[in-house]
Amino acid sequence: MKAILDLCVVPMGVGVSVSKYIAACEKVLKDAGLKTQLHAYGTNIEGEWDDVMAAVKRCHEVVHEMGVPRISTTIRVGTRVDRSQTRSDKIKSVEEKLD
Amino acid sequence: MKAILDLCVVPMGVGVSVSKYIAACEKVLKDAGLKTQLHAYGTNIEGEWDDVMAAVKRCHEVVHEMGVPRISTTIRVGTRVDRSQTRSDKIKSVEEKLD
Amino acid sequence: MKAILDLCVVPMGVGVSVSKYIAACEKVLKDAGLKTQLHAYGTNIEGEWDDVMAAVKRCHEVVHEMGVPRISTTIRVGTRVDRSQTRSDKIKSVEEKLD
Amino acid sequence: MKAILDLCVVPMGVGVSVSKYIAACEKVLKDAGLKTQLHAYGTNIEGEWDDVMAAVKRCHEVVHEMGVPRISTTIRVGTRVDRSQTRSDKIKSVEEKLD
Repeated sequence: MKAILDLCVVPMGVGVSVSKYIAACEKVLKDAGLKTQLHAYGTNIEGEWDDVMAAVKRCHEVVHEMGVPRISTTIRVGTRVDRSQTRSDKIKSVEEKLD
Repeated sequence: MKAILDLCVVPMGVGVSVSKYIAACEKVLKDAGLKTQLHAYGTNIEGEWDDVMAAVKRCHEVVHEMGVPRISTTIRVGTRVDRSQTRSDKIKSVEEKLD
Repeated sequence: MKAILDLCVVPMGVGVSVSKYIAACEKVLKDAGLKTQLHAYGTNIEGEWDDVMAAVKRCHEVVHEMGVPRISTTIRVGTRVDRSQTRSDKIKSVEEKLD
Repeated sequence: MKAILDLCVVPMGVGVSVSKYIAACEKVLKDAGLKTQLHAYGTNIEGEWDDVMAAVKRCHEVVHEMGVPRISTTIRVGTRVDRSQTRSDKIKSVEEKLD
């Protein structure tokens, strides 16, 4: 089952600057071989459900290992069985309607 | 790694009435032996990360098997390593401050 | 326009214990006269869109006034124009299918 | 109060193809003069809280006017009072740690 996921990891209890933890998550996702795109409030990820979710779990593990006591993450995850659709298909489909 | 998760499954392409699909997800969660609490915009789930996430995946599979072509789910998931905390601990902690 | 909203306010930069800030938000919502239900990962709120959103903004203001430098909030918000539906209608509709 | 928001509008009851409704929301946001960036699972928006939230409401109104009976939207919204931060600041901050 293919999934398109949007991940936003929020480290708690470590001050207001959290970019180093987000960078660590980006590395986890890259190391997992997943296609990703960082944006200003999360990261788009595309892949097989199991691969994507294993990477999300690894993000939590790595961020805790860096000393973060608590994490509150939000995820949007979409699956469809009517046809295949990539992240760029989704964006292109909206942009075509904007022309 | 223990997790407290809030799950909101949104079936698309099957009309506005989606409660039967949400009920099917509730059954999946119960069958998985997870502690859950349905609310008006999702379901609280408590358990081991792997068990909870396996049940979330099973929800997508079951809802697709019921004929839903597309699903957009949102998840909040919290982990903490400083101490253990249950769902009822979280609610009790807020309610104590309200007294 | 009526809305059913689920609110989860995450204070950042103030340690791992955040229940006093959540309690302050609960007071804001009550003072606004809104119907609410606290759960383990957020609060269900029901009311007119403008009233609900004004209260959400007030939550951010109050939590910042308490000394929180940064807040990351997640919201689910549903509107429908085909028929009216309350929070308890939504839960009842799922529970009927579970019987 | 400045806000950085991530918006994901999910139209329900109108089939699986929803890009025309997302395109309509993009137009609402542009017409409101807001800085935005579409991604594969939502849209980043930056501006004053009131302006951003007024545009989110207008998205719901416009999509309902297009014939969509039900909408389930998810929002991440961040505010901070310790310093100003733009969307590009957030991305740059992570990318610097990746080098």
